Amino acid sequence: MNSVARERDQNLRERADRVIPGGMYGHLSARRLSPHYPQFYERVQGARAWDVDGREFVDMMCSFGPMIVGYQHEKVEQAASAQRERGDTQPGPGPAMVELAELLTERVDHADWAMFGKNGSDATRLCLSAARATTGRRSVVMSEFSYHGWSAWSNKFADGQPGHADPETFRYTFNDLDSVRAAVAQADPENVAAIYVSPFRHDAGHDQELVDPEFAKGVRALCDEIGAALVMDEVRAGFRLNHGSSWEPLGVKPDLSAWSKAIANGYPLGAALGGDRFRDGIQQVFATGSFWYQAVPMAASVATIHALKDENAVATMEAAGTRLREGIAKQAEQYSVDISQTGPVQIPNLSFAGDAEFKKAMTFCGEAAAHGAILHPRHNWFLSSAHTDADIDHVLEATDTAFRAVRSAFGSD
Amino acid sequence: MNSVARERDQNLRERADRVIPGGMYGHLSARRLSPHYPQFYERVQGARAWDVDGREFVDMMCSFGPMIVGYQHEKVEQAASAQRERGDTQPGPGPAMVELAELLTERVDHADWAMFGKNGSDATRLCLSAARATTGRRSVVMSEFSYHGWSAWSNKFADGQPGHADPETFRYTFNDLDSVRAAVAQADPENVAAIYVSPFRHDAGHDQELVDPEFAKGVRALCDEIGAALVMDEVRAGFRLNHGSSWEPLGVKPDLSAWSKAIANGYPLGAALGGDRFRDGIQQVFATGSFWYQAVPMAASVATIHALKDENAVATMEAAGTRLREGIAKQAEQYSVDISQTGPVQIPNLSFAGDAEFKKAMTFCGEAAAHGAILHPRHNWFLSSAHTDADIDHVLEATDTAFRAVRSAFGSD
Repeated sequence: MNSVARERDQNLRERADRVIPGGMYGHLSARRLSPHYPQFYERVQGARAWDVDGREFVDMMCSFGPMIVGYQHEKVEQAASAQRERGDTQPGPGPAMVELAELLTERVDHADWAMFGKNGSDATRLCLSAARATTGRRSVVMSEFSYHGWSAWSNKFADGQPGHADPETFRYTFNDLDSVRAAVAQADPENVAAIYVSPFRHDAGHDQELVDPEFAKGVRALCDEIGAALVMDEVRAGFRLNHGSSWEPLGVKPDLSAWSKAIANGYPLGAALGGDRFRDGIQQVFATGSFWYQAVPMAASVATIHALKDENAVATMEAAGTRLREGIAKQAEQYSVDISQTGPVQIPNLSFAGDAEFKKAMTFCGEAAAHGAILHPRHNWFLSSAHTDADIDHVLEATDTAFRAVRSAFGSD
Repeated sequence: MNSVARERDQNLRERADRVIPGGMYGHLSARRLSPHYPQFYERVQGARAWDVDGREFVDMMCSFGPMIVGYQHEKVEQAASAQRERGDTQPGPGPAMVELAELLTERVDHADWAMFGKNGSDATRLCLSAARATTGRRSVVMSEFSYHGWSAWSNKFADGQPGHADPETFRYTFNDLDSVRAAVAQADPENVAAIYVSPFRHDAGHDQELVDPEFAKGVRALCDEIGAALVMDEVRAGFRLNHGSSWEPLGVKPDLSAWSKAIANGYPLGAALGGDRFRDGIQQVFATGSFWYQAVPMAASVATIHALKDENAVATMEAAGTRLREGIAKQAEQYSVDISQTGPVQIPNLSFAGDAEFKKAMTFCGEAAAHGAILHPRHNWFLSSAHTDADIDHVLEATDTAFRAVRSAFGSD
C-alpha cells in the first residue's frame, strides 16, 4: 500500500479550489473518483506515473489515450527535440506538416488529404465542416451516448445543464441499422450531411460493444444511398486496433475520419482525414488556430506512427491486454464477483453486475489506486506498447486486493 | 535582395498540394500572399525566421501573435524543458496548472478563476459557456467583422460558403454604443447572455480603431443594466497593451475574458478567466480536451508572464513599435504615398489610400518579403520585446524598397 503522506496533493487541491472552478474540471478531475487517487502528477516514464507526493503508479489510462508507445519514448522525444531546436510555433508550418500528411494518407486507406488541429474536438468538427460544405446539407446523425468532443453539436452540457439540444443532431443505437434508418428518416434523408460512427461502442458508463460487420457495411451502404458522408471518429481508438483506419479489416471505408489522442504520443494534435470527394468542400471552410501549425507535435507524430509499426505496437498491446483480461477474469472467478469485461483487450472496460451507481467500480478502482494502479470506474482503460508483463502483473496484484475489497464490502454474487 | 534558389519551398508546396486541401489552409497559408513569401519555415530565433531555403527574415507577425518575448527565449525554454523532463501530457495536471491560475488571477484584476484550453477558439467558447450557464440565456452580441475564433457561432465560413449564420448571434459597430443597444434590442435584452468586445477594433482587412473610453464604460453599464456578461476577447491583444486586462487603464472590468496566442510565447494554450459570479455556472459546463492539461505549456506560460514584467516588455514593444511607425511615416512622406497607420504601435496596421482590393498592400508586403521582412497586407502586425533597433532598421530598409515599388507601380498620391 502506498502509505506516504499526501500533503502536496492536498495542498494543491486547496489552492486549486480558489482559482480553478470546482477545483478541477473535465475528464482529468479526480473529484468524482475515490480519494485514493491523486489529482496532481509530478512525472511520468514508460507506463509509470508518479504523483506529487512521490507515489508510483502503473498508468492503465495512458492519460485517457494519448500515451501509446510509452511516456518519454526515446525516438519520439528525439524527433520532437530536433524539431524544437529549430522551431515549433513559427510564421508558417515546417516540412514535418507535409511529411505527416503524406504518412497519414499512406497509412489510412480512405484518406487522400489531411488537415490538422489541436484536439479531438477540432478533428470531429472539421469532419462535419467537410461534410456540410460538400453536401450542402446540415443534419448530423450519431449514436446515442456517443461522445464526439465538447462542442455543442455533440455535447448537451456545453452550456451547462441540458435543455438546449442541437436541433440538427439526431441519434441512433449502435449496431442497430434500423435505428440509423429511423434517425435518418427523422432528420430527412435529403438533409443528412453526415453519419458518425465510432470503431466500436465505447460510451463512458456503458459496457463496450464490438461492431457487427453487417452494421458497418449497412451504414456504409446507407450513406451511399442517401449521399451523406460516413464519418469515423477514431479519436479514442485510432492506431490501437490497426495501423490504419479501424474498419479496414472489415473492408469498410469511411469518407472522413477524425484522429487525435494517441497520434503523437501525448503531443497536442488532431487530424481530419478525407477522400477526394470532400476536398473542394473543405477548401471552402475557414478553420484555423494559432497553434494548429506547431512543428514539434507533427514531428513527434511522424516518429510515433513509425514507432507503432516498427515496434509492432498493436500486437504488443493486444498481448498485454490479453494478459490483463485473463488475470482479471481469473481473480473475479476466485472471489466469486460477477463482472463484464468488454471491448477490445487493448481498450478494455470492466463493469460489475448490479452496479448501476458504480459503487462497486468505485471501491474496486479506489483500492487499485491505493495499491499503485490507475484504472477508471466509468471509462474504458488504455493499453500501450510500453506496458510490460511486470507492469501488468503489478496491476493484477492491485486488482487482487481490489476484488477482495469489493467482495468484503458487497459480498459475492 | 534574398536571391537564393527557392527549390525546397517549391518542392514542399507541390507535395502539399497533393495531401493538404488547397495546399495549405487557414491564416498561415501563403496562397493569397505575394510569391515572395515562403510557405514553409526551417527555424526561428529571437525576432528572426529562416525559410526552408535558408532565407532570413525579421518576423513582424510573431507567428500572428504567439511569439511575444522572442523565439527560443532562454527562461521560457528553461522552464518548459525542466517540466518536459518530468512530464507533459500526464494522467492529471501538474502543479504548474495551479501556479498559472494563481498568477493569471493575480495579474488580471477582474479574474477570480481560470480554465485552460488549447487555442483562442476554446477560450472564447468557454466564456460563452460560462455566460450562458450563469444567465440561463442564449444570445450573443458581437462587433461586425470581429473574429472570435473559427467556431460556427462567430464564423460564417465554418461550414463553407456562408448562408447559415448562427441565429443566436447579433452584431454591432465598434465604438458605436447606439448600435450595441440596437443589437441588444434585436436579440431581446432578456435573452442576451453576453456582449463580446475586443480591446480595440482589429478586424482583418480594416483600419484599426482604439476604443473610445466612453464606449467601454457604456457597454459595461449596458451589460449591468440587462444582466448580460461583458466578455473581453484578449486573444489577439492580451499582454501586448498591459500586464493585465487591456481595459484596466480605463477602469473598465469585463466579467469574463479569453486569452491565448502570446500567453505562453508560442506554446499551445488558451485561458478563460472569470469573476466569482460565473463560477457556479461554469461548473455546470462539461468542457475538456485530451491536451488541455499539458504541463509544459503551463510552465512556459508562467515563465512568459514573469518575463513580460521582469523585462518591461510592454514598454519595449511600444518603443520598437514607435520606431517602426515613425520610420514608415517618414518613408511614406518621402515617396508621397498616402497611408494610414492605425491601432497601438505594438500591434500596428498599415493601409494605403484607395486600396480597397489591397493591390498596393500586396505589392508593398511582397517587396518587403523579398527584402527580408515578414509583414501582412490585410492583417495587423505584432511587435515583440525581442525586436531590437537593428531588427526594426532592417525592416525599414525593406519597407523603403517596398515604398519605391508601390510608387513605381501605382504613382504617388
